[in-house]
Amino acid sequence: MTDAATNVRRGGRRAGGRADRRAAAGEAVIAPAYLTRKIPTFSILNEEGLAQIEHNADTILEEIGIEFRDDPESLDILKNAGCDVVGERVKFPRGMCRQIIQASAPREYTQHARNPARSVKIGGDNTVFVPAYGSPFVYDIEQGRRYATIKDFENFVKLAYMSPGLHHSGGTVCEPVDLPVNKRHFDMLYSHMKYSDKAFMGSVTAPSRAQDSVDMCKILFGDDYLDPATGKPKTFMTSLINANSPMTFDDTMLGAAKVFARTNQACIITPFILAGAMSPVTVAGTAAQSLAEAMAGMTLVQLVNPGAPVIMGSFASSISMQSGAPTFGTPEPAMVLYVMAELARRLGVPFRSGGSLCGSKLPDAQAASEAANTLIPTTLAGVNFVLHTAGWLEGGLAMGYEKFIMDADQAAMMAVQLAGVDISENGQAMDAIREVGPGSHFLGCAHTQANFKTAFYRSAITDNNSYEQWASEGSKDMATRSYERWNSMLNSYEAPALDEATDEALLDFISRRKSEMPDATH
Amino acid sequence: MTDAATNVRRGGRRAGGRADRRAAAGEAVIAPAYLTRKIPTFSILNEEGLAQIEHNADTILEEIGIEFRDDPESLDILKNAGCDVVGERVKFPRGMCRQIIQASAPREYTQHARNPARSVKIGGDNTVFVPAYGSPFVYDIEQGRRYATIKDFENFVKLAYMSPGLHHSGGTVCEPVDLPVNKRHFDMLYSHMKYSDKAFMGSVTAPSRAQDSVDMCKILFGDDYLDPATGKPKTFMTSLINANSPMTFDDTMLGAAKVFARTNQACIITPFILAGAMSPVTVAGTAAQSLAEAMAGMTLVQLVNPGAPVIMGSFASSISMQSGAPTFGTPEPAMVLYVMAELARRLGVPFRSGGSLCGSKLPDAQAASEAANTLIPTTLAGVNFVLHTAGWLEGGLAMGYEKFIMDADQAAMMAVQLAGVDISENGQAMDAIREVGPGSHFLGCAHTQANFKTAFYRSAITDNNSYEQWASEGSKDMATRSYERWNSMLNSYEAPALDEATDEALLDFISRRKSEMPDATH
Repeated sequence: MTDAATNVRRGGRRAGGRADRRAAAGEAVIAPAYLTRKIPTFSILNEEGLAQIEHNADTILEEIGIEFRDDPESLDILKNAGCDVVGERVKFPRGMCRQIIQASAPREYTQHARNPARSVKIGGDNTVFVPAYGSPFVYDIEQGRRYATIKDFENFVKLAYMSPGLHHSGGTVCEPVDLPVNKRHFDMLYSHMKYSDKAFMGSVTAPSRAQDSVDMCKILFGDDYLDPATGKPKTFMTSLINANSPMTFDDTMLGAAKVFARTNQACIITPFILAGAMSPVTVAGTAAQSLAEAMAGMTLVQLVNPGAPVIMGSFASSISMQSGAPTFGTPEPAMVLYVMAELARRLGVPFRSGGSLCGSKLPDAQAASEAANTLIPTTLAGVNFVLHTAGWLEGGLAMGYEKFIMDADQAAMMAVQLAGVDISENGQAMDAIREVGPGSHFLGCAHTQANFKTAFYRSAITDNNSYEQWASEGSKDMATRSYERWNSMLNSYEAPALDEATDEALLDFISRRKSEMPDATH
Repeated sequence: MTDAATNVRRGGRRAGGRADRRAAAGEAVIAPAYLTRKIPTFSILNEEGLAQIEHNADTILEEIGIEFRDDPESLDILKNAGCDVVGERVKFPRGMCRQIIQASAPREYTQHARNPARSVKIGGDNTVFVPAYGSPFVYDIEQGRRYATIKDFENFVKLAYMSPGLHHSGGTVCEPVDLPVNKRHFDMLYSHMKYSDKAFMGSVTAPSRAQDSVDMCKILFGDDYLDPATGKPKTFMTSLINANSPMTFDDTMLGAAKVFARTNQACIITPFILAGAMSPVTVAGTAAQSLAEAMAGMTLVQLVNPGAPVIMGSFASSISMQSGAPTFGTPEPAMVLYVMAELARRLGVPFRSGGSLCGSKLPDAQAASEAANTLIPTTLAGVNFVLHTAGWLEGGLAMGYEKFIMDADQAAMMAVQLAGVDISENGQAMDAIREVGPGSHFLGCAHTQANFKTAFYRSAITDNNSYEQWASEGSKDMATRSYERWNSMLNSYEAPALDEATDEALLDFISRRKSEMPDATH
């Protein structure tokens, strides 16, 4: 016999669709709030190589320095801490950043969700899968590509809420461009608070919007806002502070970071790098520069409020050296990811990277290959906060409905691998092998009967039927099945209960704040 | 700024298509014959778990035993070696198999190609990517699914020859069902010998066909057939001997294995397992059974001819417990793969597994996700002989033209990761970081200029252009671009030179042998 798989169907059609749908609806309840890995992380580089990159990052910080632009306060803070500041260029004495970060940055922290069962632990052996972030466009196979609206935003919040593979509601899951730029953060935050009970991210596009995010959390969490043990705010948001690579931070991001740090909200300090443009064309060079930038930003956060949660981020893809276009899912960025994850562990801080990145414009094979080429390294490297887990298309310019469903399915599969190999007596299954013996089959044996319900990961969107059955059902591809899936999910969506007084207080706050400001486009 | 990637195009359109095509044509020449990993392997299970699985495999061999059906000679050989043989059931004293295999099976071996520059080293730190095997159907997006013919077979041999990501011509790249079953092996072998100069696999569907394969190698390699140092045949074929899992070998496979072993040709002993049907529903149970079966087969090979090259194989996927259909690219088989690769390394033999498996009927996102979910673990686990690297669709029932192109592209990407992180001075790129400094870009710096040609993996089929450019070029998906690619490759195919007298001798042999037998359908 060849390896061509024969169908070992046990007769009859697959189990009833109604039970399937019930199971799907129930998944959101029984899924774990976050994942804790039971398997090792993968190391692509040895101690010598990692130490060399750390040394180079220190050299960048010491000899070249990082620019903190249009933000005198940050320059003062860094100068007072011992940095050499000339103009906006800040040089850090060798070892200073590592020392400051290791002295106070937490190795892991809890981000509280309004449903306590959905609070997530970020750092250590934990993995949190988070939707994609920041796309001005959305895409679905029926309507194609178009500008995102607040309705799309709400849809993605609902889909993330219903996806057991995702542990977080995300932040700017798409840009609701139908709303004024200076007011849309209210509507985005309200969507996360109203339509989901998973944890979410705050607004970073202006310090005042970061403060609005904090103020809305005060309303949402009420008496739970302060930690009674410390008298300080608990952490309710994890927000995205990108560096303007190479080696630059701007006042918008720095301002938001300081608001969040002072209120004990978590910041992800992420060098945003397309290697070849914002960093050298090599893995080791990109990693050293990323580490230097991230350490500079994390150091500022720790100086602003020692002990404030901070995540080391890395977003590193590359560009086509032929056309200059950004590329995704190629091998070099995966290697940067493995290296950066190790560097974060050595530093002792939570790590953000990865996701399901791709350059494709539609949910085709390119999208799927590129996403897997990022998501699997993400999982094996031990990324703690996986932004862009679901939906990312077209280099982040579009949030795809079908892609979101496909990615969330893959993320759920990763959970199985993170749980590792069961070597309990039941896992060893020697009783099954003894019972069945040579030349028979395992379909009906006692061990199979006892374990079949949870034995293998079951996808709601892959098709494993015979060619004939698949053809008779319309020869649908993965994108089409995913389209049906997200429509059916949105049709069956039910909002998690939100206290009416809280809801009104949120709406009042938003209404008052919006009335204080004219619409603006920046 | 958000993570949405902006296009950093350097102005102008991408470099000319003609140069691209020249580069593509040249790739086959400059690609390495096989890959040697410079990165570690990934371990998913600890020493305790691996030792437990080895113990369980020994228990299966000792207490349950393996059936060798319809092959008295093999039973005699095993009995004489100390096995307990009752009927066709063979029980192995604990530790016997490991001892016999470790005493004589080579850790790695060279499979010679007719172009010596393309000979492949199998085992150790080496990886050889091989096309898919055994499909009765072929698929392309224009003609859809249809029975394979010898013309398709030749096409896939040509495409594998031209694919720098593939190191081997494979075996039954598809079943040429337009030819009589008992004669098609001649045409398949001739295609490999004529249309490619990469290494290939022999026929295993009858002992006489295995012998025909050996006889054709004698003609093809002529004076090089025997190793002058040993007087024995060199290894020219690596052929696929599947177990009839659970715990059974049949006379067809055993007969072919003995022919190959006696002539020093390599056998891959592969338990073919869809977990839940041919093995327990657990990872640890499937691994123990696979190890037991593979060790039994490898032991027979070493008893037949100590030192004959043998590969430990594992093909383990699972079935849907709802429908009984085989499933691919799910997380549990990837875990089996990681475990089996470690078990093979501990045993000290080359390992075959993995590839680009999928259950999808067409080259869509499902096909790509599932393939990546197998190929990336394949690469990280350290698989030496990667059968089914390119083309596999529909659980192996169809060989896909577009899927072949997509998979070969992914395999070529894996080569970059296996080469590891360059930490040379050039790799560290500190001069680039110093030259550019904060807030500028790396596009024109000296280091980028010196390295851009080889900086990043470059795919011929992914699209990274802007949405507008992509739309203006016809909004093609990955499958469409892959369709264009394989057609253009076949159009520009040029056969590697084959000595005319050898060619005639091969054709004469085939003609004579065919005339000796009536057409048959088995």
